Amino acid sequence: MTLTLSQDRRSFGGSTQFYQHFSQCCQAPMRFSLYLPPQAAQYRVPILYWLSGLTCTEENFISKAGAQRFAAEYGLLLVAPDTSPRNLGLAGEDDRWDFGSGASFYVDATESPWAKHYQMYSYITEELPALIAENFPVDATRQSIFGHSMGGHGALVCALRHPSRYQSVSAFAPIAAPMSCPWGETAFRGYLGENRQTWLGYDASELVKTSAWEGPILIDQGEADSFLGEGQLLPERFEAACQQAGVDLRLRRQPGYDHSYYFIASFMEDHLRHHAEALDCF
Amino acid sequence: MTLTLSQDRRSFGGSTQFYQHFSQCCQAPMRFSLYLPPQAAQYRVPILYWLSGLTCTEENFISKAGAQRFAAEYGLLLVAPDTSPRNLGLAGEDDRWDFGSGASFYVDATESPWAKHYQMYSYITEELPALIAENFPVDATRQSIFGHSMGGHGALVCALRHPSRYQSVSAFAPIAAPMSCPWGETAFRGYLGENRQTWLGYDASELVKTSAWEGPILIDQGEADSFLGEGQLLPERFEAACQQAGVDLRLRRQPGYDHSYYFIASFMEDHLRHHAEALDCF
Repeated sequence: MTLTLSQDRRSFGGSTQFYQHFSQCCQAPMRFSLYLPPQAAQYRVPILYWLSGLTCTEENFISKAGAQRFAAEYGLLLVAPDTSPRNLGLAGEDDRWDFGSGASFYVDATESPWAKHYQMYSYITEELPALIAENFPVDATRQSIFGHSMGGHGALVCALRHPSRYQSVSAFAPIAAPMSCPWGETAFRGYLGENRQTWLGYDASELVKTSAWEGPILIDQGEADSFLGEGQLLPERFEAACQQAGVDLRLRRQPGYDHSYYFIASFMEDHLRHHAEALDCF
Repeated sequence: MTLTLSQDRRSFGGSTQFYQHFSQCCQAPMRFSLYLPPQAAQYRVPILYWLSGLTCTEENFISKAGAQRFAAEYGLLLVAPDTSPRNLGLAGEDDRWDFGSGASFYVDATESPWAKHYQMYSYITEELPALIAENFPVDATRQSIFGHSMGGHGALVCALRHPSRYQSVSAFAPIAAPMSCPWGETAFRGYLGENRQTWLGYDASELVKTSAWEGPILIDQGEADSFLGEGQLLPERFEAACQQAGVDLRLRRQPGYDHSYYFIASFMEDHLRHHAEALDCF
């Protein structure tokens, strides 16, 4: 697979880089940003994936979250993929900000016309890790995942479905029960069809009931997040499901914080430390 | 003067805020972003002004530089104004990215049609500080200034012209000798006219020769900065002038770093500490 480097910017002693490549899963060009920490010049480093929220590209996290500072401290390679394939010419692709481009919900779509290109679950869990292992000085046996909003949903789903593949998971304001919120229902109906049984495999509050996930799950949720009030995030459902399943959820409700990257940046250090501990970076 | 708050986002225990107001100096609406550290709830905090570079608005620094983390630690109020008045309908206002909108060069223009609105030097050194003192819990006797590129030029000029008003100054990749580079010549000719004598008051490499500035000046300059190679920044001229004047310049050439906010964020901690020390934040 050919990777094309489009930007390489020295940061915190390492490099913030932007790549594009042709995705076999998605049958489309895909983009991701990456932070190569200084330690990668010395030894194979563990990998931390970030999944972004609705409308975001591969740039939002890497330019605004302030994660490089801590990735450089702990020796973590960061990878932040775009949130969907783009510019495919599909009917309805750009009609809504919460469906289609920038809104893949990290599922493998089964419905036309999305199925051919929107294979983001396989892209995130299979193709992208293989690509990273092949092209960068990483220890592919040590990887973790986190994300924000739609990407928090994606991170939880990936970890709960693959408890042995990810050493840790965390999320900022995740869409924690997508089958039960308007964003998730729209997305799942469009990408997966009407049969709600098929949705269960992409709902963290359902998956946690049967997952073998053992480690702690860290979630930060701003209490002034307008999407919380609108019932799009539903952390209380995930909390109840974790309690029922005996999963160690560390759900921190942060007074006054909203849904933005100002909120995310404020707690980035805690999340990076959470992952660095699980990935044996100390 | 009436300030209108357009965004208020909790960050690092304080608040990142966006304001607009009608500027008397500029006879136009102006915008700025601000970070109110948690300490401002307890006591009057010192102020650190940031001046941005060409094309930037009040948002670039506050969303990308990662400064809030350290402002929260040291108890500094950050203020980052827009780089010019905008949408005035002046002939040529939006023709070039390095002149007019987003490119004030922080001078008080004397030439038509700019003179009526482009009074950014007075805005930054007089009107904005008065506005901040009037509206926020600050110790207006303690203020410092820094900036990037065109804003690094602006910060140096403000400090060198007002050595008693600013406790410290620093810059990232400043336009350090604007009379001698294409960007500066275009701007000064357009805003100040053809008489180069009048330009001297806005050129840091000239001002430092006669300024009473005593404190150390911290400058970071990326060695892979393409504008360095193009002769737009000329730190060596400022370095020679400082040496001649006996001014303590700490010019750090950073190998591999470019002109972007990835570079700026990498050294933000050092700059905030530089200012926090001068402002007695410890």
